[in-house]
Amino acid sequence: MTSSRSVRAQARPLASARRDSVPSALAVNTPTSTRGFALDPRSPYTRITEPTGTSCTPPVAMNSPSNAHPELLDSSTLSITFAQFLWRSSPINGTEIATTGRSFMGPLYRGNVDAMKNVRWGIMGAGRIASALVEAVRQVPGGEVVTIGSSSRERAEAFADLHDIPGRHATHEDVARDPNVDIVYVATTNDLHHANTLAALERAKPVLCEKPFALNHRQAKEMVAAARERNVFLMEAMWMRFQPAISRLEAIVRSGRLGEIHSIQANFGFLAGPHPSGRLFDRSLGGGTVMDLGVYVVTFATMLLGAPDRIIATAEMSDEGIDEQAGIVLHHRNGGLSTLSTSFVADSNMEAFVSGSDGHVRVHAPFHHSPTLSIERRGTVVETIDTSYQGSPYRFEVEEVHRCLLKGATESPRMSLDDTLMVMRTLDRIRDRIGLTFPGE
Amino acid sequence: MTSSRSVRAQARPLASARRDSVPSALAVNTPTSTRGFALDPRSPYTRITEPTGTSCTPPVAMNSPSNAHPELLDSSTLSITFAQFLWRSSPINGTEIATTGRSFMGPLYRGNVDAMKNVRWGIMGAGRIASALVEAVRQVPGGEVVTIGSSSRERAEAFADLHDIPGRHATHEDVARDPNVDIVYVATTNDLHHANTLAALERAKPVLCEKPFALNHRQAKEMVAAARERNVFLMEAMWMRFQPAISRLEAIVRSGRLGEIHSIQANFGFLAGPHPSGRLFDRSLGGGTVMDLGVYVVTFATMLLGAPDRIIATAEMSDEGIDEQAGIVLHHRNGGLSTLSTSFVADSNMEAFVSGSDGHVRVHAPFHHSPTLSIERRGTVVETIDTSYQGSPYRFEVEEVHRCLLKGATESPRMSLDDTLMVMRTLDRIRDRIGLTFPGE
Repeated sequence: MTSSRSVRAQARPLASARRDSVPSALAVNTPTSTRGFALDPRSPYTRITEPTGTSCTPPVAMNSPSNAHPELLDSSTLSITFAQFLWRSSPINGTEIATTGRSFMGPLYRGNVDAMKNVRWGIMGAGRIASALVEAVRQVPGGEVVTIGSSSRERAEAFADLHDIPGRHATHEDVARDPNVDIVYVATTNDLHHANTLAALERAKPVLCEKPFALNHRQAKEMVAAARERNVFLMEAMWMRFQPAISRLEAIVRSGRLGEIHSIQANFGFLAGPHPSGRLFDRSLGGGTVMDLGVYVVTFATMLLGAPDRIIATAEMSDEGIDEQAGIVLHHRNGGLSTLSTSFVADSNMEAFVSGSDGHVRVHAPFHHSPTLSIERRGTVVETIDTSYQGSPYRFEVEEVHRCLLKGATESPRMSLDDTLMVMRTLDRIRDRIGLTFPGE
Repeated sequence: MTSSRSVRAQARPLASARRDSVPSALAVNTPTSTRGFALDPRSPYTRITEPTGTSCTPPVAMNSPSNAHPELLDSSTLSITFAQFLWRSSPINGTEIATTGRSFMGPLYRGNVDAMKNVRWGIMGAGRIASALVEAVRQVPGGEVVTIGSSSRERAEAFADLHDIPGRHATHEDVARDPNVDIVYVATTNDLHHANTLAALERAKPVLCEKPFALNHRQAKEMVAAARERNVFLMEAMWMRFQPAISRLEAIVRSGRLGEIHSIQANFGFLAGPHPSGRLFDRSLGGGTVMDLGVYVVTFATMLLGAPDRIIATAEMSDEGIDEQAGIVLHHRNGGLSTLSTSFVADSNMEAFVSGSDGHVRVHAPFHHSPTLSIERRGTVVETIDTSYQGSPYRFEVEEVHRCLLKGATESPRMSLDDTLMVMRTLDRIRDRIGLTFPGE
């Protein structure tokens, strides 16, 4: 039994907003040290209060919950060229972030990144999401895609020609070996994330790895350990985490307007067919809704309510042995329930709801890059917030990677590796409940 | 594992709409016999096709899925006085309803109901829902509330005076003994439904019993057995079941417009506090969200997707030992997943979503008596349907009771006792998962 939160809810001011359970993702931008670096006062960044410590994310939404358009400040970074940054290294290595206990600043990472040059991206995998990242990088000043590696030279050549990329490699591993590459984007199928990421980290290449981060927690742990041992940047490409709507949502939750947060619903279902073919339906490639869609709803729920301590799930399995649909309930360690659903066969509402004792936020479809939030109370919409934007939805994660690399951070505090590991552990437990395993696990 | 529905979904026309799994509630109006009765051609009912067989519900929505406003036809019954009904008894007793195998027509029930007189209601329990039913009965021609019984004479007198009811009894049981009573409405706390209903049935009084029907399946089974043995009418007061929005929703599902139905979400959460007092929080009175709100979401899901074969649930328990919040996933025997949530502590969205391979219906808040349905497909609203009405939301169940009594039916085919038993069994299993028991169980 939990303690009687209904009683506490009376006694506590609404603005407390379950502060005792705000997970690390919401709290990392709280200054914990006066050590660290500051940006050049001439930098556009000086328009906002730069935290000291180890955060590499402009902490706009968190420090200014009443700010009308934090996403505009995100966009403002688009106008910053690398030359405008005054690169200042942290005088102290290993500054601790209180909420996670992890250091995001190892012995100063310099890697291949030079503040006066573009960040040079090399991509492993030549699929749809790789194309999307090429577009995103091109919308973000300070980056360029220099090479692509695929499972064959033909595929690499075709992709490179189509996207006008100078480099091309006949294997994924060649991208890791390429001296022109500053950061590797792992965009291969789920089953290859582990090996591809390790190949890059072994050569001290920073990595942005597509979600789901790995097939399981064990693989993820190895990847994280490899990055931490070498003090090399690693991040899960959970692009939802960097959406303007998510920053706004977090600010609303922290403002206490919803009272104490008790309940989350998120529903990620679309018709992935009609043909049950392709990687989503392929068990050998790490398919199924839990891996591809569950990773979103679990990240969404845990980013607001923290790690779960009870996990239940059931699913409908396809003849191919993957879950076509799943229903998941998380009980969070610090209280709150999340009721989550995923589907490849239902054209669903794709919304999320974050409900407190004094109202809820409707995260309009598609919730993972929502154009609109509504604050609703007792059946009435009390505020509608436009969180739409132009341009690639993936550019926000690219910006985060650039910020982190420029600061020498080895992790993003907004999508920390501890959070990724927690999500992977949760996915493991969900798969255990529904009886889904992958070959060679 | 279920069979590969993703493959079947391709092969089957969209309009098949999971016909193989349409539960009884959707199918009972299909004529299964030419036996039965017909209404007087002068009756307003002759505007619609009267089914033969044992249905006592005007089958408007089911037989005319394209009918724009079936609720208007429901409303038209308001203008029918009992004298306008030509009472015709079924020439054949025991006509079987194919989909349930149950007889809703025992040896012709005549009871105390006379077609030329009002149905005389006696109410056990003097709380809020009793007041609501008084109002509803007064909005439906052909009925009157003749007496009220409470736990004390004072409470009964106060209620009767307030509502201008002639009879009043110092105990609930006295209502069952009152010769002026045609039907007993059991509106006591959850823990008393079983005893109160049995007391009425023992005296061959028809009963409308508030939801949740009983504390558990065992009690419900005894109540149903008592009614069936005596061929006396009994129905769970699941008023949601008779809402215009629900009829429209069933018609949309049957029309095949959503393709095959795969997934349901329903969320019933509101702030029941701030004080954790009253029957909802009292374990000795059968409190908790599963009993009071779970009964709605489970009924909603099973009415569309049929009985569940896998049930998982987890909850947050209060210091008082009841569930303050619960998350429930049902896997339905014939396929489909329902992801359901209940809460007394979160001001939630109160919506339901019914999703098929070709779109979903949003059942707008409050879903259990929704004023609006939206048909949505791939993120776009393709149709909005007004299902609002004036007057008491409880009058539709009162109309159903009157129809059934007048026809001599011992069960409502729209809210059958088999469905009630299935829901109670499901609630038992949910309580088992969350560890909720009631004193004396």
